[in-house]
Amino acid sequence: MEPDAVAKAFVEHYYTTFDTQRTNLVALYQDNSMLTFEGEKIQGAQNISAKLNGLPFQQCKHNISTVDCQPSSPTGGVLVFVSGNLQLPGEEHVLKFSQMFHLVPGPTGNLYVYNDIFRLNYA
Amino acid sequence: MEPDAVAKAFVEHYYTTFDTQRTNLVALYQDNSMLTFEGEKIQGAQNISAKLNGLPFQQCKHNISTVDCQPSSPTGGVLVFVSGNLQLPGEEHVLKFSQMFHLVPGPTGNLYVYNDIFRLNYA
Repeated sequence: MEPDAVAKAFVEHYYTTFDTQRTNLVALYQDNSMLTFEGEKIQGAQNISAKLNGLPFQQCKHNISTVDCQPSSPTGGVLVFVSGNLQLPGEEHVLKFSQMFHLVPGPTGNLYVYNDIFRLNYA
Repeated sequence: MEPDAVAKAFVEHYYTTFDTQRTNLVALYQDNSMLTFEGEKIQGAQNISAKLNGLPFQQCKHNISTVDCQPSSPTGGVLVFVSGNLQLPGEEHVLKFSQMFHLVPGPTGNLYVYNDIFRLNYA
């Protein structure tokens, strides 16, 4: 699959899962995966899942504005760079965010999230 | 050098060079480097340099808000994720941006920019 198609499919899957069944995100990470969330560094699928599921809102809706991608090496791996906004229940204003993912092939050849960096873009 | 120190030094060097001697940025890229600039894909140091030096403003000032980094693989390489704003001459408002770099070791061991993705974050 071309990097563009990989990125598009991943972004669709990631944010739909986040918004509808956040506990399932754990399947996208492995033990050596890294998340930096608003500057906080978290390692490993279980810790990352605990962080994402412990965020202080139950419902949210990600709206994606842009998706860019590039191969991260000649031998596989895809970088995905996303911008968009996040709608939280009871909040009038949306929160703008940027996020990047580095998808790499796992032992079975399936891509997983090795790197994940998330930042809100304050106005 | 630790990834955090690499990222800090790189970000300082990159944006200072951009703001004061933009033609020197070419030295940070190689022939297989990729830039995606506001969705436009450009490959190779010379083409990337031509794009950056051809932007329709002579002077600018990048102000960096956040720098996050992670190792991109167990064997070297650093991902750098930047948010900030860009001040252009004669513009009252700053432009918010996000940018990511993937630094990888070149033939001589020095890091160079393999991946570069830039996006303005429109309000």
